[in-house]
Amino acid sequence: MTLESELLAWLRENLSPNPRLAVGFGDDAAVLAGNTTAETVVTTDMLTEGVDFFLHEVDPRQIGHKALGVNLSDLAAMAARPVAVLVSLVLPRDGSNQLSALELAIELYHGLLPLAERFGTAIAGGDTNTWDGPLAISITALGETTQRGPLQRTGAQLGDQLLVTGRLGGSILGRHLQVEPRIEEALLLHERYPLHAAIDVSDGLALDVSRLAAASRCGALLDTEAIPVAQAAEQLSQRDGRTPLEHALGDGEDFELVLAVPQQAAEQMLAEQPLQISLTRIGEIIESPGLWQRNVAGERTALQPHGYEHRGNA
Amino acid sequence: MTLESELLAWLRENLSPNPRLAVGFGDDAAVLAGNTTAETVVTTDMLTEGVDFFLHEVDPRQIGHKALGVNLSDLAAMAARPVAVLVSLVLPRDGSNQLSALELAIELYHGLLPLAERFGTAIAGGDTNTWDGPLAISITALGETTQRGPLQRTGAQLGDQLLVTGRLGGSILGRHLQVEPRIEEALLLHERYPLHAAIDVSDGLALDVSRLAAASRCGALLDTEAIPVAQAAEQLSQRDGRTPLEHALGDGEDFELVLAVPQQAAEQMLAEQPLQISLTRIGEIIESPGLWQRNVAGERTALQPHGYEHRGNA
Repeated sequence: MTLESELLAWLRENLSPNPRLAVGFGDDAAVLAGNTTAETVVTTDMLTEGVDFFLHEVDPRQIGHKALGVNLSDLAAMAARPVAVLVSLVLPRDGSNQLSALELAIELYHGLLPLAERFGTAIAGGDTNTWDGPLAISITALGETTQRGPLQRTGAQLGDQLLVTGRLGGSILGRHLQVEPRIEEALLLHERYPLHAAIDVSDGLALDVSRLAAASRCGALLDTEAIPVAQAAEQLSQRDGRTPLEHALGDGEDFELVLAVPQQAAEQMLAEQPLQISLTRIGEIIESPGLWQRNVAGERTALQPHGYEHRGNA
Repeated sequence: MTLESELLAWLRENLSPNPRLAVGFGDDAAVLAGNTTAETVVTTDMLTEGVDFFLHEVDPRQIGHKALGVNLSDLAAMAARPVAVLVSLVLPRDGSNQLSALELAIELYHGLLPLAERFGTAIAGGDTNTWDGPLAISITALGETTQRGPLQRTGAQLGDQLLVTGRLGGSILGRHLQVEPRIEEALLLHERYPLHAAIDVSDGLALDVSRLAAASRCGALLDTEAIPVAQAAEQLSQRDGRTPLEHALGDGEDFELVLAVPQQAAEQMLAEQPLQISLTRIGEIIESPGLWQRNVAGERTALQPHGYEHRGNA
């Protein structure tokens, strides 16, 4: 048996049946049972050894979890419900970390399957290869819009308030692996409030906010003192001397959502706090292009949109 | 600018607008304009350096063409119309063949874009990475069924005739790179005749026919003398001493379609020859499980389903 057919046999035993898969594994392609009212939302993201992770430092299950998590986070940013994913692997021929290539593949799936299960997401297919090279895992996620349609980056308007879920910074201390895609949060907020635009914080709050503003042909003003800083950012600050705020602005891989919301709805959201995680106002959409910051004294200065330029659907 | 943003800029200039993309590049995910009657068909296939190709032997444009072609061939085997693809690249950091990583990425796209264009397929997204490793290109293709629904491997019935498009064998001499996905052929035949099952010949005729038969819980009998042998198989035979028939049975990467069709329809198809390429009867579906061959004298013997075990949606 080849590695691919062995993995297929393992998958057949370990995948739960999913009602959205009209035709699953084992044919030339999978067929998704239709949803006649929704639009299909698609995104793809690849994690690579030596860039996104080091195999001798992390549990392959964490890599599997993260590879799926970053894709689902992109669906969350569009307020799309996950439907199915396809998983492409290229594995070092002789495996790694005392694991054979097949065992490594199974560990990756062990990492991603619970997350897929949690969101009712079908594994609709994949391709598994080995080679004389490092490990790469490429996932394509398919979602569907709700009746509200997709939530885009382009919809922010002048005077919109910028809200963020959760706390930011210092993800490298662990949270970057434990991606919690904000799917349920996005769907709940999109249904209940008139959101204008959203983006997930993958490359850094400053960079991602500036992208949202640019896509909406506006600028953004951050009230930097209001930014909710994660405890990990404080810890990291004690080690490296950069401020917790700098970490919150630039670290990225927080996978929280930034939302642009009209003033009145924003006030309502902040008062109601409808999520299990916090919603915090961090700034607003302004006319002047670019990214700006304002301190408690009300002084406005330009803010560098630093962060990692490596993610997104392109 | 990062490689990804440079490539994105290039893509924005070089992609034709596609009516099926409600939201294209540049957001967290793409949104496909809905088709309320069709089901979504998805498949993914990855090509890797050192396994599927050697960068110093082939033009990167051929790799791009093939990477898309093999995915579209899978859609053809399901009788699905291509809608959109997502392209994930991981490139050697310093490029290859005197090309920078960005130039290499652009060459890959130059190879796949004309094929995408030919089938009206949108480039709905991608992810572009560099690393200290070889080149891999992973494509996910989304298609949609016609009113006839998907054509699966599982539908073959006892007495069905096995027909094949085109000629087989010796693809390594060049045809394996010039993949011609049989999309239009599949759609035309599926609309006009009551096809029962199909598979594309990617891993070798014998292996792929045995898979179709096994998926349909039947056996298959090949009339080996009837198999249409490609000229390349004859050429290869003169070099390596294996017979042209062996090449036709085992080489693979022909990307032709094998169809299981009820007797009467098969006779009609063979008489009408509705395609620009030939349709040939090569055998039939039988009760005895496994793969069998029959020579002109009518002698029946078991046939090894040889071929490459490396493709398919798993």
